[in-house]
Amino acid sequence: MPREITAFSNATVKRLRSLRDKKARKEEGLFLAEGLRIITEARDSGQLPEILMFSAEGARHPLAAEIIAATEAAGGDTIETTPDILSKTSGKDNPQMLLGAYKQPDTGLAAIDRSAAPIWFVAQSLRDPGNIGTILRTGDAIGAGGLILIDDSADPHSVEAVRASMGATFTQQVAKAPWEEFISWLRSCPGQLVGTSLNTDRDYLGVEYTDPCFLVIGNEQQGLPADYEAECDVLVKIPMAGRADSLNAAIAAAVMGFQVRASWR
Amino acid sequence: MPREITAFSNATVKRLRSLRDKKARKEEGLFLAEGLRIITEARDSGQLPEILMFSAEGARHPLAAEIIAATEAAGGDTIETTPDILSKTSGKDNPQMLLGAYKQPDTGLAAIDRSAAPIWFVAQSLRDPGNIGTILRTGDAIGAGGLILIDDSADPHSVEAVRASMGATFTQQVAKAPWEEFISWLRSCPGQLVGTSLNTDRDYLGVEYTDPCFLVIGNEQQGLPADYEAECDVLVKIPMAGRADSLNAAIAAAVMGFQVRASWR
Repeated sequence: MPREITAFSNATVKRLRSLRDKKARKEEGLFLAEGLRIITEARDSGQLPEILMFSAEGARHPLAAEIIAATEAAGGDTIETTPDILSKTSGKDNPQMLLGAYKQPDTGLAAIDRSAAPIWFVAQSLRDPGNIGTILRTGDAIGAGGLILIDDSADPHSVEAVRASMGATFTQQVAKAPWEEFISWLRSCPGQLVGTSLNTDRDYLGVEYTDPCFLVIGNEQQGLPADYEAECDVLVKIPMAGRADSLNAAIAAAVMGFQVRASWR
Repeated sequence: MPREITAFSNATVKRLRSLRDKKARKEEGLFLAEGLRIITEARDSGQLPEILMFSAEGARHPLAAEIIAATEAAGGDTIETTPDILSKTSGKDNPQMLLGAYKQPDTGLAAIDRSAAPIWFVAQSLRDPGNIGTILRTGDAIGAGGLILIDDSADPHSVEAVRASMGATFTQQVAKAPWEEFISWLRSCPGQLVGTSLNTDRDYLGVEYTDPCFLVIGNEQQGLPADYEAECDVLVKIPMAGRADSLNAAIAAAVMGFQVRASWR
């Protein structure tokens, strides 16, 4: 049976709330996901929360009831609480009726099997967690394997990133590595490294992409450093028709990803 | 000469700060844009702020100095202030060194000349101002004419939308209309209405798009209502390879927009 918590001062509530901070996520090895849709996505991908907190109303949904039961059966901590405590824990005005704390996956490059998917996203020093989540969501849509985060990036397990991923956090692999380490891993097996750049005339529509294709997206402000561009097998340009010279990072990732897929059909 | 304001209680500071709220934007007919990049974009598109507030450091940039002088010459109110007041006014921790208040453009459909561009975005009940700004930015990149917001949508002149647009607020036209009014305007002249939908097998890569092409993006949660879909000339599906059945709204807009452009090359 779930236990009931009605006090905001409760230690588990405080612990869950602390997971909104990167430092606490790292120490605890846990991260938060909210909402029936994302928590169902997690379950369907074989992942149950360590701690699952929900409102009485939330528990009434048949799918939620299933996941609560499965979490209990797996030895997880299930907690019924008030909408107010859910809201204060997740930091959202319109709280979801379920909030789970999940084990963080291994984010080492060694955990990635590149043959598992034909496309992988690689993002360098992304600052916006929303962009990271959106790239994961797009990755799921195009059948990518996951996202490799290069150098210092926003946390893919932040509440904002998980929310923007709409559950793709649980279906896409995420790895983190410095550029040098990524390049030596990449070159240990076949793989085409494609960078988007302003420093080329090669149109993104006219390139032969090969499987597995690694699509590199640069930092939101600076794009990809020149020495990183130099390591790419091919640099492509997405032509701009207007005044601006760049796209939002998650948009650039999607335009490239869908084009690679279209070129293979 | 700019006047100097160092008190947070100053009436103009309060007025600028109020523009973070939709109601005040509507009453004043003004909206905020921050940062040298966006304010330069505005100037290059022929628009100067009614009020321009900046830090001493901000004014030292030659481009900023030009825009400050031009704003004064045009009769605008130019104000030098402290970084702290700039930060409190824009609501950003890392304030930009310039903040402008601009006149809101006419957002009636009648102001739109559809022959001015081959592609127009149409978005129905978008809730996220970041998506609206990102669609404007993508519109600029593909040479779209602008964005028509249908029914009740987030405000395209909110600080978040303007920020995400990276200046495209000033280069793309924005109109607002209820669906019925949009349809009667649309059908008064040639124009292809294309909806993305889950309710069709027609692949987005296999369609002949015609100029001017109106790309409709549905609400983030619900997609397009069935009776709106029925009005479209063609419904297309962006195939999904993964578990999820939808893309982020701004991503869907970009994938469609770049594909229409690619199909014409």
